[in-house]
Amino acid sequence: MVFEKSFTFLTSEYNQYTLITEKIESVVTESGVTNGMVTVLSRHTTTGITTNEALECLESDIDEFLCRLVPEDHPYAHARMLADYGSTAGNPTGHLKALLTGNHAHFLVRDGRIEKGGAQEVYFCEFDGPSERTFLVQVMGE
Amino acid sequence: MVFEKSFTFLTSEYNQYTLITEKIESVVTESGVTNGMVTVLSRHTTTGITTNEALECLESDIDEFLCRLVPEDHPYAHARMLADYGSTAGNPTGHLKALLTGNHAHFLVRDGRIEKGGAQEVYFCEFDGPSERTFLVQVMGE
Amino acid sequence: MVFEKSFTFLTSEYNQYTLITEKIESVVTESGVTNGMVTVLSRHTTTGITTNEALECLESDIDEFLCRLVPEDHPYAHARMLADYGSTAGNPTGHLKALLTGNHAHFLVRDGRIEKGGAQEVYFCEFDGPSERTFLVQVMGE
Repeated sequence: MVFEKSFTFLTSEYNQYTLITEKIESVVTESGVTNGMVTVLSRHTTTGITTNEALECLESDIDEFLCRLVPEDHPYAHARMLADYGSTAGNPTGHLKALLTGNHAHFLVRDGRIEKGGAQEVYFCEFDGPSERTFLVQVMGE
Repeated sequence: MVFEKSFTFLTSEYNQYTLITEKIESVVTESGVTNGMVTVLSRHTTTGITTNEALECLESDIDEFLCRLVPEDHPYAHARMLADYGSTAGNPTGHLKALLTGNHAHFLVRDGRIEKGGAQEVYFCEFDGPSERTFLVQVMGE
Repeated sequence: MVFEKSFTFLTSEYNQYTLITEKIESVVTESGVTNGMVTVLSRHTTTGITTNEALECLESDIDEFLCRLVPEDHPYAHARMLADYGSTAGNPTGHLKALLTGNHAHFLVRDGRIEKGGAQEVYFCEFDGPSERTFLVQVMGE
């Protein structure tokens, strides 16, 4: 059995961490799947999906960490006039943060509920906002 | 067909790399699934699951690498009194190492066996031990 | 329903980024799966699989970024005589880049087509070439 739902929303900051755990849980409930797996996937290349604890101080640590590894003031190649775009591409840092963070999360589903640890929440990470963003949630199982 | 098993164990070090490949293989055998996928997931936010070669010298390189990118002596925000905890949160580095490492691994299952390359082994990575830790192994397929 | 196919090819550079999106799409079409998930997995521990935009300038940014985080001239432990190998292991950087990049990618399949964002392409990342490499593509669903 395969059940899928997509969510589209607007981000408001350049780098922004949005909790989406409740949306994932609602899809699992709606799916009717008893045992299986739920997968969350971003449709973008300058965003991330990651599982971590939901704490404001941790969000700022993650942001500071990624900005330290991928500084804005660096001579990136992907920061030049692109004919296809008709403008200068200025989001190399978003693509590199996406590589580090990954673009998906999984949880197992048992007895109709997500099996997650007490601290596990899912963040949609915006690395090139503000923008309209879409993520997909799929439940597969029986 | 969905088959799942969880494993709980105690880690003994602050940062510790434990091979769990044999446990994954045993679950695949027990599941009776012939063709499908096996997924390994941690239930924690200061641990990682990663696939790499099983070599002691490589474990120390991974540890040194993660400690270099995420040093202990850094002014993290998640290192202060938290009312919910009733104590000081002192594990920001574990959360950031978890972000880099990821919290899951997959292998394909074909003809009842894990299809893995000769060098591929799975590590459960402890980044805030010693602690009691649980990981889940699920086989889905036919 | 489970459908799987493997691809073996030769890389020609030490670090090399090869687009494999079309191969993934061909497996989805061939599988006949209407709704489900496609998974791409490397069989190696010094390679990566990652989803990003297909731009030459971005490939060079990714390469420069990984080489900056994981420099070649560093006193790694996995750079010594290994009895099992009968030679010096000289690929610690490949193993660490693999940890950062991850070894798999997923897309959802809906109505027989991969649901991917307009910019999403999949790269097979060689971090210790030239070498013969294999990746697996599996479609599971109904």
